[in-house]
Amino acid sequence: MISLSSIQEAAKRIDSVIINTPLLESDFINKRSGGRILFKPECLQRTGSFKLRGAYNRIAKLTEAERKRGVVAFSSGNHAQGVAAAAAQAGTTARIVMPEDAPAIKIENTRSFGAEVILYDRATGDRAQIAKDIANETGAVMIAPYDDYAIMEGQGTIGLEIIESLRAKGLTTDAVICPAGGGGLLAGTSTAIKALSPETCIYSAEPEGFDDTARSLLAGQRLENAPGQSICDSIVTHRPGELTFPINQRNVTGGLVVTEDDVRLAMKAAFENLKLAIEPGGAAGLAAIMNGQYDCSGKVVVVILSGGNLGAGDFANHLNAAPG
Amino acid sequence: MISLSSIQEAAKRIDSVIINTPLLESDFINKRSGGRILFKPECLQRTGSFKLRGAYNRIAKLTEAERKRGVVAFSSGNHAQGVAAAAAQAGTTARIVMPEDAPAIKIENTRSFGAEVILYDRATGDRAQIAKDIANETGAVMIAPYDDYAIMEGQGTIGLEIIESLRAKGLTTDAVICPAGGGGLLAGTSTAIKALSPETCIYSAEPEGFDDTARSLLAGQRLENAPGQSICDSIVTHRPGELTFPINQRNVTGGLVVTEDDVRLAMKAAFENLKLAIEPGGAAGLAAIMNGQYDCSGKVVVVILSGGNLGAGDFANHLNAAPG
Repeated sequence: MISLSSIQEAAKRIDSVIINTPLLESDFINKRSGGRILFKPECLQRTGSFKLRGAYNRIAKLTEAERKRGVVAFSSGNHAQGVAAAAAQAGTTARIVMPEDAPAIKIENTRSFGAEVILYDRATGDRAQIAKDIANETGAVMIAPYDDYAIMEGQGTIGLEIIESLRAKGLTTDAVICPAGGGGLLAGTSTAIKALSPETCIYSAEPEGFDDTARSLLAGQRLENAPGQSICDSIVTHRPGELTFPINQRNVTGGLVVTEDDVRLAMKAAFENLKLAIEPGGAAGLAAIMNGQYDCSGKVVVVILSGGNLGAGDFANHLNAAPG
Repeated sequence: MISLSSIQEAAKRIDSVIINTPLLESDFINKRSGGRILFKPECLQRTGSFKLRGAYNRIAKLTEAERKRGVVAFSSGNHAQGVAAAAAQAGTTARIVMPEDAPAIKIENTRSFGAEVILYDRATGDRAQIAKDIANETGAVMIAPYDDYAIMEGQGTIGLEIIESLRAKGLTTDAVICPAGGGGLLAGTSTAIKALSPETCIYSAEPEGFDDTARSLLAGQRLENAPGQSICDSIVTHRPGELTFPINQRNVTGGLVVTEDDVRLAMKAAFENLKLAIEPGGAAGLAAIMNGQYDCSGKVVVVILSGGNLGAGDFANHLNAAPG
């Protein structure tokens, strides 16, 4: 189980490796929202997303014997880069199972951290099985993307930093809005926030059609998404995690759901007003306040921008396709 | 004249209004450069550029009588927004003279801070004269873009923050590279850095054809640029400032010069590796290390990214036009 103190321990463990990202705000976004919106831009984190936090916390806990055998993970994107960079930093080897049609830049970046990339065919291969086979054959330790308390503790350091930064500004926050895939970022962050600021409400943000967290919270059990594609690929999972979901059930007030057009508008607003490149999944929280689903009038709200890994061409296409 | 202590006074004066921007770095840019490059991203500053620092420091020093009469400035971009936001924060009124063909978003943003925008025709009007006439008629105080010690002191707070952030990381820096237009940012920053870290070398970065600072430093006197257009409009001036130049002569080791293609490549690298939207002028320092003019091998180098105010369409066009 995770707790405030285990997240505080994680913060010490990862301190020298990660960037304590600032809280940013825009006068224009504030004015339009009628509240005060503070952004936690994890696109500015090393590897371009929050994933390094959890991956490094997990890998730093390996025994000496495990460290010698290395780690293995499967991911098409942010977790791949997070694990690769964390392994390099911890002085262990990483094997990352990635789909052969993953964006070239993501494969290249993962390799550039010194990881061995094992490509598989999405149509015929099962990436979890391939990774498990590697773990069994080599003794490498599997680094799960979210269903692992050490991963959640690492992501939870974002919650500690949010509260510290707010205190330095003399502020408290009414709400924290957090993109949700498997729910590891949400579980870690909400645990830290609820411990330090119990009156703050936590909301998840997800794309339409992949709103498993929102539906599961309402149903009181883990529901699945129908198969499909989303521009928010970095936060799309089949269903909430087994370990993350009970934590989120306890901490989260509700699930916000956004359309792809909402997400594109949010990406454009982040570019124009915050000067940040946000990937679609990373913009889901901002999309949820811009579409009016969460009303910020008179409130202080923290929105987590979870990552910024996308190519220049895709970025331009999304901004061009934004309505209005 | 400006000094370390006058810049430290400015830092206290502007503390509650500005963002202390973090130092960011990219594993990929570090690897390619052979050194360690730390970026000071003033695109993340309120109003999207460093200009708020100097403008607020100047306006905060107004007497009560001056404050009642308001301020006036001329600018087509970053200084306009900086003065407008600073005036609003200080509770005074601002009139900003802008060319009628300035990007709509910049005019809109300036108005959105509550400033009155006075449009003029570039072909027939003289913006400095229009602003002077307004000052004479209304008693409003002219807020100069760089040739004013209070402005330089405000910009110099960037130098203080750089040294503080480096110390927190246990680092010193071999060089600081800073975009230069009229030279206010350069004068303020270099004064702070030289006082706190005398062994650090300071370099200006400018676009080809508008390298008045580089040429003037070599010639020992203020030289002019030939008239013309540059994509780096935010850092193009006719010649170095009268008050800024002697300070820069004392502090600056040399002037780096970049092409427009260098700038586009730097904008793309900042997007891909730092997840930041940098305007062309703001990317001149990064361009100067990417084009190899300043060799970073084995060094710690701080690069100031001075602003990020540009439209989505222009941004996409620059990234598409980047060579390679």
